[in-house]
Amino acid sequence: MAMVSIDLDMKRVTNEEFLKKANDCMPVLKETLVHPSAIVKIQDNESSYPDVSIVDSAEHLSDYPMKKGDKLYLDFGGHQVGYVTLRLSSTGSPQDSPAYFRLKFGEIAREMEERSQDYDGWISQSWIQEEFIHIDVLPAELKLPRRYAFRYMEIEVIDTSLKWQMVVDEVACTSVSAVDTASVQPFQTQDELLQKIDRAGIRTLQNCMQRVFEDGPKRDRRLWIGDLRLQALANYATFRHYGLVKRCLYLFAAQTREDGRVSACLFTEPKLVADDTFFADYSLFFASILLDYYEETKDIDTLCDLAPCAYRQVELVRQMFDERNLIQGEGSTTNMWCFIDWTEGLDKQAAAQAVYIYCEKRAQKIAEILGDAATADDMSTDLSLKSEAAFRHLWDNEKQLFVSGTHRQVSYASQVWMVLAEVVDAEAGGKLLDRVTALNPEKGMVSPYMNHHFTEALLMCGRKEKALEYMKFYWGGMIRLGADTFWELYNPQNPSESPYGSSIVNSYCHAWSCTPAYLLRKYF
Amino acid sequence: MAMVSIDLDMKRVTNEEFLKKANDCMPVLKETLVHPSAIVKIQDNESSYPDVSIVDSAEHLSDYPMKKGDKLYLDFGGHQVGYVTLRLSSTGSPQDSPAYFRLKFGEIAREMEERSQDYDGWISQSWIQEEFIHIDVLPAELKLPRRYAFRYMEIEVIDTSLKWQMVVDEVACTSVSAVDTASVQPFQTQDELLQKIDRAGIRTLQNCMQRVFEDGPKRDRRLWIGDLRLQALANYATFRHYGLVKRCLYLFAAQTREDGRVSACLFTEPKLVADDTFFADYSLFFASILLDYYEETKDIDTLCDLAPCAYRQVELVRQMFDERNLIQGEGSTTNMWCFIDWTEGLDKQAAAQAVYIYCEKRAQKIAEILGDAATADDMSTDLSLKSEAAFRHLWDNEKQLFVSGTHRQVSYASQVWMVLAEVVDAEAGGKLLDRVTALNPEKGMVSPYMNHHFTEALLMCGRKEKALEYMKFYWGGMIRLGADTFWELYNPQNPSESPYGSSIVNSYCHAWSCTPAYLLRKYF
Repeated sequence: MAMVSIDLDMKRVTNEEFLKKANDCMPVLKETLVHPSAIVKIQDNESSYPDVSIVDSAEHLSDYPMKKGDKLYLDFGGHQVGYVTLRLSSTGSPQDSPAYFRLKFGEIAREMEERSQDYDGWISQSWIQEEFIHIDVLPAELKLPRRYAFRYMEIEVIDTSLKWQMVVDEVACTSVSAVDTASVQPFQTQDELLQKIDRAGIRTLQNCMQRVFEDGPKRDRRLWIGDLRLQALANYATFRHYGLVKRCLYLFAAQTREDGRVSACLFTEPKLVADDTFFADYSLFFASILLDYYEETKDIDTLCDLAPCAYRQVELVRQMFDERNLIQGEGSTTNMWCFIDWTEGLDKQAAAQAVYIYCEKRAQKIAEILGDAATADDMSTDLSLKSEAAFRHLWDNEKQLFVSGTHRQVSYASQVWMVLAEVVDAEAGGKLLDRVTALNPEKGMVSPYMNHHFTEALLMCGRKEKALEYMKFYWGGMIRLGADTFWELYNPQNPSESPYGSSIVNSYCHAWSCTPAYLLRKYF
Repeated sequence: MAMVSIDLDMKRVTNEEFLKKANDCMPVLKETLVHPSAIVKIQDNESSYPDVSIVDSAEHLSDYPMKKGDKLYLDFGGHQVGYVTLRLSSTGSPQDSPAYFRLKFGEIAREMEERSQDYDGWISQSWIQEEFIHIDVLPAELKLPRRYAFRYMEIEVIDTSLKWQMVVDEVACTSVSAVDTASVQPFQTQDELLQKIDRAGIRTLQNCMQRVFEDGPKRDRRLWIGDLRLQALANYATFRHYGLVKRCLYLFAAQTREDGRVSACLFTEPKLVADDTFFADYSLFFASILLDYYEETKDIDTLCDLAPCAYRQVELVRQMFDERNLIQGEGSTTNMWCFIDWTEGLDKQAAAQAVYIYCEKRAQKIAEILGDAATADDMSTDLSLKSEAAFRHLWDNEKQLFVSGTHRQVSYASQVWMVLAEVVDAEAGGKLLDRVTALNPEKGMVSPYMNHHFTEALLMCGRKEKALEYMKFYWGGMIRLGADTFWELYNPQNPSESPYGSSIVNSYCHAWSCTPAYLLRKYF
C-alpha cells in the first residue's frame, strides 16, 4: 500500500521570527572517529536474520588485496551515523585501469544479504545505502560526501584489471550526533535483557538526534511530529537536550499550510519546507509536545509564542467532527487522514477521537497556564462533548470494548488511545486492556510506535509486570535478533515484514522505537 | 586473447634530471565550455551502428522532469574530453528521498546501447564510462570529478519517489586539451570525404593531447610509445606543439628498466611509473621518435641528452638476434615480445626484423649528427648484416614476398615494414605491395596503426592514387559510420570487432588513428 500525500496546490506561510528562533537553537554536532572492529562473515542460516562471525581483526585489512569479485564485510561494532573515509592503494603491477568498486552500508546484517536489484517496493530505491565508485588514480583518500547509518559495510571490487589489486589500507567513520551518552546513567537493573533494551533505546535516540530529531538516520532523515513527541519524552529522561526540542517546535510553527495547519513532517535542507502530508493525530500532537516541553523546562516564552499554533490545530481538527461529535475521516480517499499505526485495514475513527481528546486536554491546560480562560473554557466544554460521544457511539456494551467506524471494528488502537486520553479511568482502562489482549483482535499492532502506546497504556493502568513482560517480548525480540538500535518496524509474528514492499529500505534505527529508555525511567 | 604483461620483479631506475626536464614541459591545458547541442533519440536499426535523431534542442532540457525509469540522451555535437557539471533541481512535492540516477558517457552512439552488465571482456570493466549518483538535497550543482571522453551522454533516473521528479536544468562540459584547432589550416581539397577525414584526424589528435600524448582519452589514457611516434608526426604537420613531444621523450628516458630498456608505456599519476610491458618494436621506436623530433625542431640539447637511451634500445634488441642475424621472439611465452598489430596468429619475425632495421638506421643517423663515428660505424655494419639476413632467410623467391617464422607465414605486416625500413627500394616495394594486395593473405591488418603503415608504405612507393583510395575506404569507412574522431580499432569486414572481448570498452578516439592529418599534409 503506497501511502503518499501530494498537494501541489498547497500554500505555505512562513513565520520568519519563529524560523530565526529555530535556527538559533541549531545544535553543533559532536563528532567521534570510529574504526571497524572486525572483518566479518555474514552467513545465511535459513532464518530471516543471518549469522555474523568474526574473520579477522580490521587492523589486518590491508592484508587482503582485492581483485575482481572480491568482497570484504566490516563490522563497526555498533550502529553509526556518520561520514566514511577510505584510504586505498594498489598492489601488483602498475594500476593500468580505474578501480571500480561497490560500497554498501547496512544497519543490520540482514540488509547486507538483500540485493538492491531485486527491490521493487513503492518507496524510493534511492534509500538503499549503496555506492558505485571509480577511482582513477591510487593511492587515494576517498571521503564519501553522504552520511550513512550503518553498522556493517561491504566493499566489493567490481573490477581492477588482470595486472593489479586494490588494497584497503584504512576505513574510518566520523560519527555524528547532537548528543553523547557520557551524561546518561544506564537504567539500574540486574536484568541483562532490560540493560540491553535500555542501551539500544538510548543509542537509537542518540543516532536520531542530529540537526533535528530525525525519524531515522537511514530513512527518511527528517522531522516527523509523531516521532518527535516520543523522542522528546525519551530525551527528557536521558540527554535532556532541550534546545533541540525547542528548535523542532519552532520549525513546525515556522511554516504551516496557509490555514495554520501543521504538517506531519518537514524538510530543513536546503531550506525549511513543510511537507504536503497531514495527519489529524500528528497535527494535534503539536499541543501535546508543547505542553510536555513546558512542563519539563518551564520555558514560558516558548509556550506563549507557540500556544496559538497549538490551539489552531485543535480548532482545525474540530472541523472534522459531525453533529454527533464523532470524528469523520472516511470521506478522505485514503486511510491517510490520521496515522495511528500501519495496520492494514485499521479503522482509525475511535483512536482519532481519543487522540483529539488527549491533545485538546493538553491544549486546554496550556490555555489555563497562560491564563486564557475563554479558550480553556471552550475546550473544557468541547472535551465533555467529545468524551460523551465516544461513550455513546463508540462503546460496545456487549463486547465491553470501544469499536470504530461503520463496521464497528475492534482493535488494540481504539482501546489504547481511549486509555491514554483518560476517557476511561485507570481501573476501567486496565480491564479494557486485559479484554482486548485476551480477545487478540485481528487488527493488531504493527509499528513500535503503536506498541509503545500499548505499553504506556498498561503502565498508566498500573499493569507494571505485564508492561515489563511485554517490553521484554517486543523490544527484547529485536535484541534477540541482534539489534543494537531499535527498528522502524518489528512484527514478532513476521520478523521480515515491511510496509514498503521490501525490507531493504526499512529503517533499523528509528526514533519512535526508542521509548523503553523513557518508559523504564518514568514508570520503574 | 588476454594480452597482459606482468613482471613484479621489474627493477626501475629513475633519472631525476630527465624527469625534471619532462615536467618543465608540462602543458597548461586549454579549457573550452561546451553545452549539449541536442536531446536525441538513439535507435537500433539492425546494423551495428544505431540511428541518431534530434528530439529537441538541449535548451529545453528543464522541460523534461524525470521520474523513475526516465532517460534522456544528450548530443554534445562532437567528441569531447572534459569535466562535466550538471545543475539539478526537483519539481512536484518536496524532495522526500535522495535522487538516484545513472550517467553514461559514450564516444559513439553505439556505446549507449551496450549494457555494462553484459560486459565479460578481459580488460577492466572499470573503463566503461558510467556513474551511479545519489544526491540527497536538490537543487544542487554536481561537478563530476572524473574526466570523460564522449559525444553522447545518457541520464537515467533510477528513482526519485512518487512525490517528486528530477529536473536537469543545465549540463556543461569543460573540454580540455593541450592544443586548440584555431592554428591549424584544414587540408585543401574539394573532396568532402577527405575534408571530413582530415577534420576527424585533427580532432582525434587534439583530444589525445593532454598532459602527455594519450593513446585514448577514454582508455587507456596514457602514454604508449607506438602511439607517440604517430602522434608526434601528426602534431608536426598540424599543431606543432613541440614541448609535448619533448616532455614525452624525456619521460620515457626518465624511468627505464634497470638495464635501460624503455617500457612500452608509462603512467604519470600520481607519479612517473614505467610499465612492466615491453615490446621490441616499441622500445626501438624511441630512436625514431627522437630523430623525427630533432629533424623538426633542431633541438640539439635534447638529442644529446637522449641519444644514449636510443642507442641502448638498439643494443638491447640486438641481443634477440641469432647467429644468422635473424630476430627471434618465439622463445617468449606469448606473442607479446613485439607489437606490430593485433592480428591473431600473426608471425612477427619479419616485421620485427624490419622495424629493427628502420630504427637502427635512425639511431645511426643520430650518431652521425652527434659526430659519434664509432657508434655510427658499428650500426652501419650491423644494418648490412640484418638487411642481408632479411633477404637470405625471409625472402621467398617463388612467392616474391617476405615470409615470417618457421611456418614461412605471408602477411601484410612483413611486406609493409620491409618497405618502410627501405630494405627494398621504392620500385621493388611498390611491386611487393601490389603483390600482397592481390594475394590478400589470411593475415590481414586489424588496427588503424597497421593500416597507417600500409598507407604510408604505398605513399613511399609513389602509389598516391591507391593510398588515397585506401584512406577513403578505411578511415572514410569510420566517417560513414558517424565517426567524428577515429577509432582504436576498425575492421571494415567486421565493424563491431573488439580485441577485448566486447566493444563497449573500445576506444573511439585513439591516437594511432589520427594519421590521415599527417599523411595528407606530407604526401599531397
